[in-house]
This record gives sequence, C-alpha cells and structure tokens, in this order.
Amino acid sequence: MPNSKKRYAFIVSDRTGLTAEAMAHSLLSQFPEIDFKTETFTFVDTAAKAGELVKRCHSIRSSTGHSPLVFLTMVNEELRSQFKRAEVEVFDLFDTFIGPMEQRLGIKSSHTIGRSHGVTDEKAYTSRIAAVHFALQTDDGMDIEHYRQADLIIVGVSRCGKTPTSLYLSLHYGLYVSNYPLTDHELEQKRLPEALQEFKEKLFGLTIDPFRLLQIRQQRFAESNYSTAATCQREIAQAEALFRSHQLPWLNTTRMSVEEIGAMVVNRTKSIRGVRV
Amino acid sequence: MPNSKKRYAFIVSDRTGLTAEAMAHSLLSQFPEIDFKTETFTFVDTAAKAGELVKRCHSIRSSTGHSPLVFLTMVNEELRSQFKRAEVEVFDLFDTFIGPMEQRLGIKSSHTIGRSHGVTDEKAYTSRIAAVHFALQTDDGMDIEHYRQADLIIVGVSRCGKTPTSLYLSLHYGLYVSNYPLTDHELEQKRLPEALQEFKEKLFGLTIDPFRLLQIRQQRFAESNYSTAATCQREIAQAEALFRSHQLPWLNTTRMSVEEIGAMVVNRTKSIRGVRV
Repeated sequence: MPNSKKRYAFIVSDRTGLTAEAMAHSLLSQFPEIDFKTETFTFVDTAAKAGELVKRCHSIRSSTGHSPLVFLTMVNEELRSQFKRAEVEVFDLFDTFIGPMEQRLGIKSSHTIGRSHGVTDEKAYTSRIAAVHFALQTDDGMDIEHYRQADLIIVGVSRCGKTPTSLYLSLHYGLYVSNYPLTDHELEQKRLPEALQEFKEKLFGLTIDPFRLLQIRQQRFAESNYSTAATCQREIAQAEALFRSHQLPWLNTTRMSVEEIGAMVVNRTKSIRGVRV
Repeated sequence: MPNSKKRYAFIVSDRTGLTAEAMAHSLLSQFPEIDFKTETFTFVDTAAKAGELVKRCHSIRSSTGHSPLVFLTMVNEELRSQFKRAEVEVFDLFDTFIGPMEQRLGIKSSHTIGRSHGVTDEKAYTSRIAAVHFALQTDDGMDIEHYRQADLIIVGVSRCGKTPTSLYLSLHYGLYVSNYPLTDHELEQKRLPEALQEFKEKLFGLTIDPFRLLQIRQQRFAESNYSTAATCQREIAQAEALFRSHQLPWLNTTRMSVEEIGAMVVNRTKSIRGVRV
C-alpha cells in the first residue's frame, strides 16, 4: 500500500502563519518516511473561515481514512475550539504553552492576536528597512566609501551566495551588511583587496563547494570561461587560502539555506566581535 | 516592587534558533505586563554548552529569585534532559508535540537534528536565490522588459516599502517579484503607466499613511519638495485612486512589518489569482 504513507497536514493561523509554518515543518521533518501534503491557511480569523476548514478536514478523512494533522496558532478561544469540537487532529502550538506559562508567571495572558510579527518597536523596524537599503547600496562591491557604516562585509567569489546572505541579514537582523566580490584579478594577487584592508575586523568569508559553484555558474553563463571546473576550483582554493592567511571567520555554504547561513554568521560574529543584534 | 515584573527568558536551540525565537516571542507577547529580558543561544549542540547555560539559569535564579523561562528546541534527548534534570523552567517547543505525533502517525520520529531550515529541496532553494536576483534586477522600475517572467509587480509611490516587500517575497516564498515606482508625473496622468498596462493581472498596490510617509522621506531628503506634507498627501491620494479605478488588490502598510505585508500579499494573491507558492 504505497499510499498509506501519504498524509495531509494543515497549518492554520489567525495571522501570517509564519511561526506556525516554521514549527510545523520542523516537526514534520522528523517523520521522513511520510509524504506530507502540507497546506497553509493564513488570516483565518472568522468562524466562517474556520468552519470551512473543518469541513475540508472531514472530507479528507472520508476520502483517505485519515484526518489531516492540523497545526494551529490562534489566539481566539472560540475559533480554536471549533477545531477541537469537530474531532480534528489538532496540535495547538500556541495554547499548549500558554496555560503552563500563566501558571509559572502567576498572571493571565492577554489573549491578544498576532503580536509577534507586528511592528511593536517602530525604531527597530525603521532601522531594519534602512539596513536593507544599505545592503542594496553596497551590494557587490558598490559604494565602498560607506564601509565605515557597515557592521559586516561579506567577501567571497562570484555566485557563492553573498547577495542573498547580505539581504537576509539586513532584513532579519537589521544589520548593515555590505558584500564585496573577490575577482580573478584580486585573487591572483594573494592579498586583501585595497578597499577591505582598513576593515579587516568586519570581514566574513563565504565559500562553497567548487562543483556546486560550477552548477550555479553554468545555469547563468554556460559558455563563459568563468563557468569551467578549473576556474571554480582555482578561485575557491585561492579564496579559502586568503581567508586562512588573514584569519578571517568564514563558512562553507554548500547545502545551507540563507536562514542557516545568516544565523551562523551572527552566531560567530557575536562571539568573535560582539556585534550587537 | 517594580522589579517583580522583570523576568529572564532564554531561547535555546541546537541549530539556528529561528523557529524557537518566533514561537517564544509569540508566546511572550501574550504577557505584556512583564518586561522580559530575552536572550537567544544558537547551535547549543554539546553537553558543555548546555551545562554552561544551566549554570547561568541557576545563577540568575539565585540573584533574582526566578529561574529564566527556557524555550527549547533540541533534538538530542541527552542535551534536553540536562535542562530538565537541573530543575530549570523548560518549555520544550519541540518534544511536546513529537510524542503525540508519533502516536497519531503510528511510527517513531527520526530524531534527526535541524532539518527545518536546511536545504532539503535543492531545486526549491536554487529557485529562491534566482528569485532574489530577479527582484534585484527589476527593482524600482528597472528592466521592465522582464515583466513577462514576474509573478507579481508591486506598485506604489516612492518610499512606501516596495523594495523590502519585493525582496522578502523573493527570499521567503521564492516568488519573482518586480516593483515599479509611481512618480509624480505618472500620477498626474491618472492612468496606469505604459509599462504596466499589459500586466494588470500581476499588479499589487502598496500604500501608506501620508504622515508616516512624510516621516520616512524627511529622514532621507529633509529639504526636498518631495518631503512636504502636501506632496505626500497628494501622491497617496492619487495612488489609491489609481488602485481603485483599476480594481487592483492593494494594502496599506502603515504599522505592518515586512513579514506581515508579505504574508498578506501572498494570501490575497492566492485567492485572487492562484499564484503557486
């Protein structure tokens, strides 16, 4: 019965669903044998919308024999209980912890909706947006005269992931992150590019498996000299040698997501240099 | 006793801590009377690191009378139990659900570490990176000849949040998102700019409170005509009139975070046009 390992999972939130999605994916990934068909429902904030979903759960149960696993984050008691009353298989990601927290803190929770992704601190928010603009302005070696303002300068060869990493760090952590490409010519010199020498303590190197780099480069510039195995191998070896000789913190990003790279850069940066996040 | 409402909260993860952080902030925001001092500890993956944290919990309890609330996401049983044995106040965000899930699914979980933010699907990952490059390439009205490839084109006046929204949608959802600024001149015309007319079904409008826009613009170009109350008010009124007359989906972003704007755009887009995410 190949189909017996296929299950539905619904992620249901009264707001953006971002937290619920992250949690649910983390939990579901612990059951790799099962082929989950997941669907996210956001802004489920009325009894009608909740009722619609309960109906879908029942109809899936009728046709497959299994109710979907429902991962809920909802503040409204009444909406939550619509699911529970209906004998749907609910994992209440939120309410499960609110009770024990109330007990330990000795006060009642406010039961207000979706505070976590809203703009609670306007200053912090504005500075995240400013950080994104800074990252764009100083992307790919542009506007090096602003490096004094940077919290971090990501360095690495072309297409190793510098731009998405810089943007993620600015969007998520509000850091001022520039990035600077190590080009063929500069790598041949075997020394830090002029523009970076003054800012050694802000540098963070990214590297990647040469074969993965080759794949990425070939997708864009199949015919170029830049996309040969030999070039990729040489550039990566030279970049890593440079990181080592200057004792820069660096990271191999092969098979890491932007989120992981970002968290790891911040983790290392905090312990190495105490940048505030 | 003003200090009695101050409490420590530790977020402890064996990986990036992103999921744990989102959940913990969502839970803590339900207790607005308490001034939580939160700290996140990522990549806590050895007994030594866990032991260090347990010690800190005990020392905080000695000095404040309260143990920190510890929000854990850890796959390793042994590390988790270091906290539990030490009588620290643990909220186990992960393990709390694994048991009930095993029961309902009828199989054991794999207990493998941090799958959720890793690159599990290389194709999906590469396409997110490609989406970021597309968003950069078609930022702020550039490269309009690529609009045929776009999933969405964000439109709005200058500094209303188009760029961060486009980047977030591309990074998080892998959507191909362009953005196009509605300029003074185009707004006066009271019709859709030439470049957009062919792609009406891909347009999504952003607007913002004129006073908030004024603040943002003044931070950058204090002296310009562009940063007067009258200009902001007129531009926003004209942009909203344009959205209405063309029946574009649109959103007022005042006081919304990029995450909320992103989730809401996707939510509306799904239901309106069935873009696949």
